[in-house]
Amino acid sequence: MGTPYLALDRAKLEANIHRLRSRLGGTTLRPHLKTAKSVEVARLLFDGGTGPITVSTLAEAEAFADAGFTDILYAVGFSPDKLDRVRALRDRGVDLVVLLDSVDQVVPGIPALIEVDCDGHRGGIVPGDPVALDIARALGDELRGVLTHAGESYFADSPDALAAAAEQERQAAVAVADELRRVGHEVSVVSVGSTPTAHFADDLTGVTEVRAGNFVFFDLVMAGIGVCRVDDLALSVVTTVIGHRRAKGWILTDGGWMATSRDRGTARQRVDQRYGLVAKIDGGLYPDLLMADASQEHGILALREGSTATLPDLPIGTRVRILPNHACATAAQHDEYQLGNGERWHRVRGW
Amino acid sequence: MGTPYLALDRAKLEANIHRLRSRLGGTTLRPHLKTAKSVEVARLLFDGGTGPITVSTLAEAEAFADAGFTDILYAVGFSPDKLDRVRALRDRGVDLVVLLDSVDQVVPGIPALIEVDCDGHRGGIVPGDPVALDIARALGDELRGVLTHAGESYFADSPDALAAAAEQERQAAVAVADELRRVGHEVSVVSVGSTPTAHFADDLTGVTEVRAGNFVFFDLVMAGIGVCRVDDLALSVVTTVIGHRRAKGWILTDGGWMATSRDRGTARQRVDQRYGLVAKIDGGLYPDLLMADASQEHGILALREGSTATLPDLPIGTRVRILPNHACATAAQHDEYQLGNGERWHRVRGW
Repeated sequence: MGTPYLALDRAKLEANIHRLRSRLGGTTLRPHLKTAKSVEVARLLFDGGTGPITVSTLAEAEAFADAGFTDILYAVGFSPDKLDRVRALRDRGVDLVVLLDSVDQVVPGIPALIEVDCDGHRGGIVPGDPVALDIARALGDELRGVLTHAGESYFADSPDALAAAAEQERQAAVAVADELRRVGHEVSVVSVGSTPTAHFADDLTGVTEVRAGNFVFFDLVMAGIGVCRVDDLALSVVTTVIGHRRAKGWILTDGGWMATSRDRGTARQRVDQRYGLVAKIDGGLYPDLLMADASQEHGILALREGSTATLPDLPIGTRVRILPNHACATAAQHDEYQLGNGERWHRVRGW
Repeated sequence: MGTPYLALDRAKLEANIHRLRSRLGGTTLRPHLKTAKSVEVARLLFDGGTGPITVSTLAEAEAFADAGFTDILYAVGFSPDKLDRVRALRDRGVDLVVLLDSVDQVVPGIPALIEVDCDGHRGGIVPGDPVALDIARALGDELRGVLTHAGESYFADSPDALAAAAEQERQAAVAVADELRRVGHEVSVVSVGSTPTAHFADDLTGVTEVRAGNFVFFDLVMAGIGVCRVDDLALSVVTTVIGHRRAKGWILTDGGWMATSRDRGTARQRVDQRYGLVAKIDGGLYPDLLMADASQEHGILALREGSTATLPDLPIGTRVRILPNHACATAAQHDEYQLGNGERWHRVRGW
């Protein structure tokens, strides 16, 4: 396999899935496949079978429908130009449910969840806003329930802050569900979730399902806020050393931002990991070595500023692994996952 | 065409090509196709024919070879794991030339350019370093010449600074070429270039070819340093309004970082354009409207901080264009260009 390529550690992937499933116990997990975009990963999430899933694009919905998944939540606000493809999926027997937060978006015959805003992160209706009742009335029998996503939990960086974000997420969703029930609506779905809150929620009372996506792979942003350990990261970008600038303390590789993405999520965290940590091809980090900078097809490896470690001697041709800031963004730069046993798993692309 | 998609304005593309060709006069242009990664764009660069090109991956080299391009420079440092594919291209009659900056990288039978470092940006040999002579000796008849790239010119932001970067680029390449010639080597290629320096070089004495890639599309980073006008930008991401948060002054769209990339190159410039400027679908900017933030499949449009403009009224379903920070990164998020006449042009992907 020529470098750069996207490597997936199946043992870590399976351990990550098992950890969250154990934590949730009997609560339904509706994994968000926007991170993995892979039928093989989706099947592993359900022990080889199918189950309820979340998607971020209709391209994902169509690919997972082709693979036998029939209970699909399309968790990005619905716009009318998508209607034909939504209808086509429903017509082939997929229970595709859309998301909306305004009366304008209601389409007869298309079941929907009402998006609830629990932390000001993006869209949705805040608890107490009567618009939720207007939407529910417009939806009638097509109202399935409510959904919220604690997007701000990615910036919570202590166990207490993460647990608080999870509780705030739960309370917002349950509050709007209760408002709707009080005026007679049936609310069968109360959907919450994000990778951080799913791993720190102490109480899921009133919640019917939990969504999370990133957790299958994890990344340095998740490790930075304490949701996982660096050793749990299942994804890495394998690159080859192509040169040295010894006077500058640089090792150059053939993996630039095209292979890692431009995502530098850790730049806003306590420890900035630049474009990623550098691990040996057989595992184990090179002490204090970072992918410090990137151009399109070049990576620059260098020691962390202030480090007293010694730059490792990596001759031209040496392969190393870059552990990414943000698994969703890094994976999107690639068309497939390379497994240790030689298998290649395809990724869904586009919209 | 469902949103988000990547739109390409052919008239602007052609004007951008014409402008640089006129500027260079008789000097050979060896366009860098790492930005466009498109056979159709490559052909437009040569009036429908073929010509000397630069690529950043062997996947590009193979795709352009399939389209009839036979004079190809692979301008990323050479590593031995790529040797089979380089040989296969040469065996089918492509004059593929590689780039190197150490004796270790020399492979008998593979012609190469020596990479020169003109500004400390990345790899290469600085003028005066005797390693250039060692490499030339090791290459023997396979030495084609020297190459440099003024990567730091992307941070020059005045016409004088850009012209100085171009002159520094020229001088470094010519200096190493002269060092090699003094000891008897034939140096037929002296290759310089970057989009900023190609547009600001006053003197190309001693230079045999100029490389540039971004200029076919341009972007907000290039506009920010004065290499083009915003109106020259040939690429945009078309997205649809999917919601509003009026109290926050937000308009939500279905185009997130998956459609624009995470590249925020203007964050380091005098004017930070966030994820991009917002234009009407038929052209013309919305005053002070930015794509202020992004999650994977959501964009948040908002007025620039401190603006006294009024947030435009964009109902759900309205389409807008996002003008990107960095054309190379934004285009890489898509598999094709959508032209105004309905044509779709494919992009090369992978490595």
